[in-house]
Amino acid sequence: MTKQRQVAGPETAAVIGTGLIGTSIALALRAAGTRVWLTDPDQGAAQLAVDLGAGELLQPDADLAEPADVAVLAMPPAMVAASLQAAQRRGLARCYTDVASVKELPLLGALELGCDLATYVPGHPMSGRERSGPAAARADLFVGRPWVICPVAETDPDCVDVVASLIGACEASVVRMSAAEHDQCVALVSHVPHLVATAVAVRCADAGERALSLAGPGLRDVTRIAASDAALWTEILSANAGPVREVLLAVAEQLGTAADLLADISAGHEESGKLLTALLECGREGVASIPGKQGGPAPDYAIVQVVIGDKPGELARLFAAAGAADINIEDVRIEHSPGLPVGVAELSVRPQSARRMSAVLADAGWPVASPA
Amino acid sequence: MTKQRQVAGPETAAVIGTGLIGTSIALALRAAGTRVWLTDPDQGAAQLAVDLGAGELLQPDADLAEPADVAVLAMPPAMVAASLQAAQRRGLARCYTDVASVKELPLLGALELGCDLATYVPGHPMSGRERSGPAAARADLFVGRPWVICPVAETDPDCVDVVASLIGACEASVVRMSAAEHDQCVALVSHVPHLVATAVAVRCADAGERALSLAGPGLRDVTRIAASDAALWTEILSANAGPVREVLLAVAEQLGTAADLLADISAGHEESGKLLTALLECGREGVASIPGKQGGPAPDYAIVQVVIGDKPGELARLFAAAGAADINIEDVRIEHSPGLPVGVAELSVRPQSARRMSAVLADAGWPVASPA
Repeated sequence: MTKQRQVAGPETAAVIGTGLIGTSIALALRAAGTRVWLTDPDQGAAQLAVDLGAGELLQPDADLAEPADVAVLAMPPAMVAASLQAAQRRGLARCYTDVASVKELPLLGALELGCDLATYVPGHPMSGRERSGPAAARADLFVGRPWVICPVAETDPDCVDVVASLIGACEASVVRMSAAEHDQCVALVSHVPHLVATAVAVRCADAGERALSLAGPGLRDVTRIAASDAALWTEILSANAGPVREVLLAVAEQLGTAADLLADISAGHEESGKLLTALLECGREGVASIPGKQGGPAPDYAIVQVVIGDKPGELARLFAAAGAADINIEDVRIEHSPGLPVGVAELSVRPQSARRMSAVLADAGWPVASPA
Repeated sequence: MTKQRQVAGPETAAVIGTGLIGTSIALALRAAGTRVWLTDPDQGAAQLAVDLGAGELLQPDADLAEPADVAVLAMPPAMVAASLQAAQRRGLARCYTDVASVKELPLLGALELGCDLATYVPGHPMSGRERSGPAAARADLFVGRPWVICPVAETDPDCVDVVASLIGACEASVVRMSAAEHDQCVALVSHVPHLVATAVAVRCADAGERALSLAGPGLRDVTRIAASDAALWTEILSANAGPVREVLLAVAEQLGTAADLLADISAGHEESGKLLTALLECGREGVASIPGKQGGPAPDYAIVQVVIGDKPGELARLFAAAGAADINIEDVRIEHSPGLPVGVAELSVRPQSARRMSAVLADAGWPVASPA
């Protein structure tokens, strides 16, 4: 449902598994003009995807009149290899890819089952939502996001091209890496952060209302991703146990080091204070090295703060006033005030535009805090 | 600079220390009609606060014609007790409070120096920003936020009332607890999350560009607070070393347990998978127990997604269209697409309003994803 579309997708595709990811891929392919067949062991899920306009129903073991250009195996990691084997035996498609969140497990499974590795391009779109199921699907789920593929020496280059065209139709960016590299990378950027957020959230579960009443946006940010589906994440983490365990132990050791430094600081060792500062500085560098929302390091936006009421149309009025300035708003953050009907809207703008944005809003009668 | 103001503040106040917090308090008090004197060992910082309209300059060791109703000691924890002693000796004010981020250290310091505990109300406003200094100050920094006070048996109830009126003038909510309880609470909700974010960010500093190119909003959320000033946080963490260490070791142990479960899962122990799911479920409960933006548990908002271009006025146009629906937008999140000039605006609305909001935006020509 995006406005631009340049890449021609495959002509035909079969999507096996109509959960969030499978249905979202199907919707994106449909929007690109691909003919899509949908199948899922859960007939209700398959029918819902059909009703959403994601494609035509295909019974789980039915054959197509001729093989599809590509079949997408959209299911948990542990199920991919067997599904690939069955689909290849039936000749469902000329090329196959999967979307599982780990890549060594399905690849090794395919090898063990004697699947045809020439037509299998292991894949992983780096998109997701906290909700699941076909009803949460969106055609634009992958727009601008990385989509890893892990071809091996046996992989047919033509199949890589077909899968790349599918990724292009989803408006995602192809990133090639080995399955092992992929699994190590996602352990760091996705799986370990999930467990760390969980560990902090578990402490909150025991903490009591008074302590949590003091919580600010920092705690909410650190723990947010721990709200995701527990059964799904057990599968994801279990399928990448080795790399996750390695990074997790390194983080736990780091926390132990910090605890030791605090004990030494209490005991009056000045040197430990310097080591703690060095650790915090290293963390700051780490945050700065994470690509920002535009893919590069985040620019240092200026923030213009405006006090807003909690009523219909308030943000519309604010943005209408801001629109008059013809300044691009890069990000918005709304901070509501617990127990009070006011909040603060934080508008991120380029530093050189901050003063003018403040002036425009103040002229329009908004209570605005001057940027530094 | 907020629109409503009901609570009368103290008539006169002295603010010692014109950093972010001291200057913000001074601005809020000025807006409430309080006469404010400002002093800081850094004359430039004091003058900047004066220039911002936060009050009148008071030389560091000068006396007032008569004592102020209240003096606010806005400085790092380790400096509070000595500053309190000096101010009490000079008779600067009738009541004193501080704003340090830990409460046992300054209270014990005051006791050791023989300060008058009757006129000292230890305090901590639960507000902050990632920036510091008087230029970052805002009169509305404390609006709707909790502000802890920790009176002891010796504290004069009249002084508690004066400090409560100061907090009311800042439009914050008074929360009374013991200094020990405060320090344990902030270790959990603020100090440990900071170190956990740092530990994950430190791993990112070593990770390399390819791994970080796969990062999504989850990693950015988990690590965001680790971007704060390292020297300031060394002071904060050092001053609360005991409680922070205790929670930190519990989190590290939790991560170790998770790592053990992953090893057991790799070895084929089914029971360990169930234990991992139970841990993740406990984390979900913890996240749900953290008060949301309105002070209670966050309602389960529906999210309406709209694809937006990255150009001036785009959000203004979107909000103008949304405003026509007369539906309150509870939160906004802008997700930009790395490398592409489009993003997704996520509008949080009450679930019963989601369908209508989608319809209104779609009618106005916006590419909108239907909520489930």
